[in-house]
Amino acid sequence: MNKQLLFSKRPIGVPDSETWTLEENPIKELQEGELLVQNHYISLDPAMRGWMNDNKSYIEPIQIGEVMRAGVIGKVIKTNNHPDYKVGDCLTGLGGVQQYSITNGNGWHQVDDTLAPMPKYLGVLGMTGMTAYFGILEVGKIKKGETVLVSGAAGAVGSVVGQIAKIKGCTVVGIAGGKDKCDYLVNELGFDSAIDYKSKNVLKELNTICPKGIDVYFDNVGGEILEAALAKIRMHARIVICGAISQYNNTTAMSGPRNYMSLLVNRATMQGMVVFDYAKDYQKAAIEMNQWMMQGQLISREDIYEGIENFPMTFKRLFSGDKKGKLILKVL
Amino acid sequence: MNKQLLFSKRPIGVPDSETWTLEENPIKELQEGELLVQNHYISLDPAMRGWMNDNKSYIEPIQIGEVMRAGVIGKVIKTNNHPDYKVGDCLTGLGGVQQYSITNGNGWHQVDDTLAPMPKYLGVLGMTGMTAYFGILEVGKIKKGETVLVSGAAGAVGSVVGQIAKIKGCTVVGIAGGKDKCDYLVNELGFDSAIDYKSKNVLKELNTICPKGIDVYFDNVGGEILEAALAKIRMHARIVICGAISQYNNTTAMSGPRNYMSLLVNRATMQGMVVFDYAKDYQKAAIEMNQWMMQGQLISREDIYEGIENFPMTFKRLFSGDKKGKLILKVL
Repeated sequence: MNKQLLFSKRPIGVPDSETWTLEENPIKELQEGELLVQNHYISLDPAMRGWMNDNKSYIEPIQIGEVMRAGVIGKVIKTNNHPDYKVGDCLTGLGGVQQYSITNGNGWHQVDDTLAPMPKYLGVLGMTGMTAYFGILEVGKIKKGETVLVSGAAGAVGSVVGQIAKIKGCTVVGIAGGKDKCDYLVNELGFDSAIDYKSKNVLKELNTICPKGIDVYFDNVGGEILEAALAKIRMHARIVICGAISQYNNTTAMSGPRNYMSLLVNRATMQGMVVFDYAKDYQKAAIEMNQWMMQGQLISREDIYEGIENFPMTFKRLFSGDKKGKLILKVL
Repeated sequence: MNKQLLFSKRPIGVPDSETWTLEENPIKELQEGELLVQNHYISLDPAMRGWMNDNKSYIEPIQIGEVMRAGVIGKVIKTNNHPDYKVGDCLTGLGGVQQYSITNGNGWHQVDDTLAPMPKYLGVLGMTGMTAYFGILEVGKIKKGETVLVSGAAGAVGSVVGQIAKIKGCTVVGIAGGKDKCDYLVNELGFDSAIDYKSKNVLKELNTICPKGIDVYFDNVGGEILEAALAKIRMHARIVICGAISQYNNTTAMSGPRNYMSLLVNRATMQGMVVFDYAKDYQKAAIEMNQWMMQGQLISREDIYEGIENFPMTFKRLFSGDKKGKLILKVL
């Protein structure tokens, strides 16, 4: 039997008890060329909230009645003549919130779970880390000596963005919610400074911390923090639009940055990115990130909860900020 | 004597009778190395509204009591040993709204008024044309076969942007106010289509005219039209932020594009530009644009009013849309 979390109703605002339904269904027979993956860990990401809306986006919306879409990592426990994978292989892909996934392997790839523990492949060595890596290097185009601002800085993506910017010789300022997270950024991850947006005025703090302004802003949150960043960009600044978590559960229209004309004044660029575009270079990036981890230059943290039935309450932590690093659900 | 329009009070919203004061003052003696320029024509540009606000911008705000800043073209009528220019030379620079300007020549440059009439050097061969040229080519990076959308399309910048895009083999859609302007775009300037934003819903029209979306949007207006464009951009689209005329006379905060996350969905870029950055290449651009004009591929139109005392009412035409092409005031 396979415990599956089905997407049952499109949420307006914050998802609630009607959004998903937990069902237990028999595991289907494998067709020729298919695999059965037993999922060990499920990835929780803010982007999943966007997939639940019935909008044109970079990926099809999840349909009502489907298994809730999610990245997973697990092991092959059965194959019906799959050409590439065998029982025991460790695979990661969009397996969904369920205990077992059946797939022909398209969109999945194999990882070596003896090199790093499985949760790392959902975090720093997975989509999360890849988003940080390509976002700050390819879109942000950081250069040594520049000042880099990151929002959602204690989060799974933001914490990696900031550390990569440090490795590349930038001055790094993180924005996060609460003293604990800010201390973590400065004391453990080596950020130059951190701003607690819950207790401080971000723009005022930026005026003090980086009076000359910022060269690159990596945006995970949108809203007023994006506006504060726009107010402080320097000439030829780059703003990387990676997410807008402050806006995802809005029941009304999102708000746009009212001071976007700062882009004109400062000849600056605001550019959106989606990690899937960099798939051909994932492996190269993972190798470099793994090296940084081995050398102690890159620290990653996973916050792991257990039990598929706890998915809805764990999901809420993405937006309440009540988590530390990459949020993961253990389902085995 | 020199009739001068002094900037007397910062406007809130639309400038009114208190914004400027007309004075007649004696012309000062020339210092060593200075020139006296008799101004023939004064340029009127939407950007001037921004210069009147006491904000950090790409240029210092105009100070109260100063001559109203404006681009001019005129002739040298006297020099006190100027090393480069002599009586009779035709010069253009930020001479201000006055009959005579005294300058050491910094920031001015000489043009040949036998090649083209003086007003062209304030329009298509001046800052206006340069803005269009570098904005659409260097920032918009248009490629043959792409679909280009231009707002303020019958205006001084927009009309040139659209024609350059046609020359480069793009499909060009213009947005303008009123049937006359739209007819002008299609019938005289060769745009592929035009949308009258005063009588039509821009987004709906875009859905019909370019169902596959747009590759480049050149924005002169901001506001809802920017949002309509964001809703229709294709993958890897470029949005050139050149102006936001719909917002310049706001008495409240500007509105930001609520759907800016379309940049993420479409991996698109929104970039600001200021023409001054391209000064070293002005001449090259002017030569190319002049060739296009001689070959009949580039048409430009000036709307010329007379009399320095008519500056305030002429200025209002910039925002009411009651003008055709580049707005210019003849002051000689």
